[in-house]
Amino acid sequence: MTKERLYLFDTTLRDGAQTTGVEFSFEDKIAIAGLLDGLGLDYIEGGYPGANVVDTALFSEKRTTNAQFVAFGMTRRAGRSVENDPGIADLVNCSADAVCYVSKAWDHQVKLALGISTKENLKSLAESVAAAVSKGKEAFVDCEHFFDGYKANRAYALDCVRTALGAGARWVVLCDTNGGTMPSEIEEIVADVLSVAPGDRLGIHAHDDTGQAVANSLAAVRAGVRQIQGTLNGLGERCGNANLVTLIPTLVLKPVFAEKFETGITPERLQTLTHVSRAFDEFLNRAPNRQAPYVGAAAFATKAGIHASAIAKDPSTYEHVAPESVGNERAIMVSQQAGKSNLLTALKRFGIAMDKTDPLLDKLLRQVKEREARGYSYDGAEASFYLLTRKLLGTLPSFFDVTSYRTAIERRHNARGDLVTVCEAVVKIDVDGEMLMSVAEGNGPVNALDLAMRKDLGKYSARIDDLELVDYKVRILDGGTGAVTRVLIESRDASGERWFTVGVSPNIVDASFEALYESFTYKLMKMDS
Amino acid sequence: MTKERLYLFDTTLRDGAQTTGVEFSFEDKIAIAGLLDGLGLDYIEGGYPGANVVDTALFSEKRTTNAQFVAFGMTRRAGRSVENDPGIADLVNCSADAVCYVSKAWDHQVKLALGISTKENLKSLAESVAAAVSKGKEAFVDCEHFFDGYKANRAYALDCVRTALGAGARWVVLCDTNGGTMPSEIEEIVADVLSVAPGDRLGIHAHDDTGQAVANSLAAVRAGVRQIQGTLNGLGERCGNANLVTLIPTLVLKPVFAEKFETGITPERLQTLTHVSRAFDEFLNRAPNRQAPYVGAAAFATKAGIHASAIAKDPSTYEHVAPESVGNERAIMVSQQAGKSNLLTALKRFGIAMDKTDPLLDKLLRQVKEREARGYSYDGAEASFYLLTRKLLGTLPSFFDVTSYRTAIERRHNARGDLVTVCEAVVKIDVDGEMLMSVAEGNGPVNALDLAMRKDLGKYSARIDDLELVDYKVRILDGGTGAVTRVLIESRDASGERWFTVGVSPNIVDASFEALYESFTYKLMKMDS
Repeated sequence: MTKERLYLFDTTLRDGAQTTGVEFSFEDKIAIAGLLDGLGLDYIEGGYPGANVVDTALFSEKRTTNAQFVAFGMTRRAGRSVENDPGIADLVNCSADAVCYVSKAWDHQVKLALGISTKENLKSLAESVAAAVSKGKEAFVDCEHFFDGYKANRAYALDCVRTALGAGARWVVLCDTNGGTMPSEIEEIVADVLSVAPGDRLGIHAHDDTGQAVANSLAAVRAGVRQIQGTLNGLGERCGNANLVTLIPTLVLKPVFAEKFETGITPERLQTLTHVSRAFDEFLNRAPNRQAPYVGAAAFATKAGIHASAIAKDPSTYEHVAPESVGNERAIMVSQQAGKSNLLTALKRFGIAMDKTDPLLDKLLRQVKEREARGYSYDGAEASFYLLTRKLLGTLPSFFDVTSYRTAIERRHNARGDLVTVCEAVVKIDVDGEMLMSVAEGNGPVNALDLAMRKDLGKYSARIDDLELVDYKVRILDGGTGAVTRVLIESRDASGERWFTVGVSPNIVDASFEALYESFTYKLMKMDS
Repeated sequence: MTKERLYLFDTTLRDGAQTTGVEFSFEDKIAIAGLLDGLGLDYIEGGYPGANVVDTALFSEKRTTNAQFVAFGMTRRAGRSVENDPGIADLVNCSADAVCYVSKAWDHQVKLALGISTKENLKSLAESVAAAVSKGKEAFVDCEHFFDGYKANRAYALDCVRTALGAGARWVVLCDTNGGTMPSEIEEIVADVLSVAPGDRLGIHAHDDTGQAVANSLAAVRAGVRQIQGTLNGLGERCGNANLVTLIPTLVLKPVFAEKFETGITPERLQTLTHVSRAFDEFLNRAPNRQAPYVGAAAFATKAGIHASAIAKDPSTYEHVAPESVGNERAIMVSQQAGKSNLLTALKRFGIAMDKTDPLLDKLLRQVKEREARGYSYDGAEASFYLLTRKLLGTLPSFFDVTSYRTAIERRHNARGDLVTVCEAVVKIDVDGEMLMSVAEGNGPVNALDLAMRKDLGKYSARIDDLELVDYKVRILDGGTGAVTRVLIESRDASGERWFTVGVSPNIVDASFEALYESFTYKLMKMDS
């Protein structure tokens, strides 16, 4: 059976740029366009030439190799001809392969927001599309407020679709602009739109205001639409756009779609999806969502003991797709609820083989549970778990020992009378019997300790050059300042590996020190092996 | 038309506890059960009595007032009678109103994971249900792997449903355990299940592995199911469970559901939803998801421009529901207007009346925005906001000034050779020109500072006797140890009032000191008035 082609359209750089707190520079946009282009998408919308200097400069060249590069903009203004509208000129003369016009499809909005007649709106739409087509560009029409417009005035909404296609638009995109439409409504309305347009000329643009942008996009495909618009990691205004990172594996891996449709995403490209999603978050300088479908760090993580033993027998027990297919991996957590099979799986990841009946395994399980009762959590701190195991096995090298440390934080008036806070740390470190002492100032006690420890680790100093602390999390385990504090530190080095270590103490500085010390030890150990 | 009743079942404390990194204490569970109970849910599942000490203690009493309190557990073990199974005894004798048994509905899993015959599995199910019913409890059966099981062996999956109902179960819950089922498959399969069970005896339990847990739950309701299981903020293993915070407003506000169904969520309770969702995140010490449907800070936020002006003309332009209906608010990013009315509302709560046109209001808004840009957050720290306002108004008394402080944390070997951490704080305090100096030891720097400040506040000492710190939260605003730290301190006194203060600094001790100092000041001020 020949499969039907489904087209994927990314609007991260245009609609995604509407996200609160997100702003893309010229260089950002070029880099992200490259990331998207490698994924195998069909269309990449870069922005709105003429609206700002970044986007105008962006469209001076085509920025994609595989995908069609799309420019977004408005239809011609009322009272102007397309020839005399500078907005239209920017769009049709730029280096984009295609132009996507936004056009209101809700009669109420046309009158309220644009203040023009519904007829004038259709005329503007038709002439604008024709202007792009005459310049050899593919034309898209984003029918804004399509579903709400359809409910209010079906005839006008369908007129918009008809007009766009009649003027030569390759695609008419049905937009759920407010994001409030239900999947069942999408299916019904799309089925009706098919009476005026073939499905392979229709697209869907969904928003996540009821948490159903993905479901709405898939409902539209089931109903007949053949193009999907979305963004990386669901970026977008309010609750975001349809998340392409979630949609893509569903379309490619789930039989109900995979048996019927094909996309530009090859199995090899699909395996880069987890990387692309996380790299994009790095780009935005935000922590990736651990619970993200398919690509989240927890997407294939199991905590419960009973589940873990079932997974060991047959992964399909708790995995709906193979984690490797999207470039992710299975993670079986070590936690209070852990049983032996969790531990064995975790050990295997570190290349440690142990028999189920080994008394050391019982001892390890007891230690883990005892430490978790004191506030440790190995769920997110696998490097600390690894160190604990190596210690128990007697294979943890002793690199260095911090025999004592002292930190002081002082807030006082300086010579100029300004109130300043200064912070200093002193560490005494024993490296193979050699006693080293260092002092450093930092902007906080943990930073000062980190800097002091790095200052002189004797023969190990060179080995930790590329060690970098990336994140630091604090959790107070019971209320009040007298409670136990758990600190989780995330580190990375030049190899790109990231690892997590944990420390627990009633004293926040001491808990931080423990996690810091373990991170250093882990780094030295991995350089050793 | 009479509406059909839809039942809402919360499993935050049971399935939600499977989330990586989440662990609930006994006190946590009681507090969260209270939060859920106030929302108007029908069933609250508290945990698994007998599985661990926390849950066993929890079920020694009923912990809900409105909702049915549900205990989760396994059906009886193979080779035992229900009378001789301690697990069953824990369930049927505890203080829960209802028992929810998990039972595998996929023949392959029964054999693989349980190693028993499919017949024995049904027998165990029937006897376990009967044991709960005979003790006067409502019985639920969670059919684990129901949808995958149905696809593999329809007859056996349906047998499980039939057996559970036959034994007297009030509800049979169809679980999409791996979370990989599509909404269209849910609809088809539920329609078939209706051939052996009425819809008002069926529930749906969905997971978000394809980003469609909400859509799957709603698809099941459309197909005939009358109970929905989910969690607060979609907590849960892997990608999480169906998010009740998203489902509830859809069911209550969207005509396709609201016209047909009723739930226990009144309009007044719905207005507390944003608060409940954010309070729960605070509880977990994690930042609320700004893009969360309905309740996110960005859910009704619009970046300035064409959209903002259209919203000013008619909110329905870009809002699918009214933000107030879920207790959220519209945020138009650069509009001073939105900010001012927020401030006026907050001021009114403290009994401060200010005119909209008062230039002090502009000044306050600028200060709040400037401080929030530096990392402060007054959302959860109303006492600090009150102090800021009083300072601006020139009505903040100067009680005492900490002219300097010094804390030292030292880890070293003591005389007996044990490694110990000691912590000391020295404060110099100016009370009306009198200089007081105190020193104290604490189990951490913040505790030591707190104790030193309390030691001698001169004439104010007696006034702070009943001041108590109840909680202390730390959030790192950017990654790494060099980042900015925000500390939130919760205090209370003998009057029962609780207040929150905030401090921000690159130095965690300094941020804590600021929040501590503000808490003392707030306490002194309220004693003054």
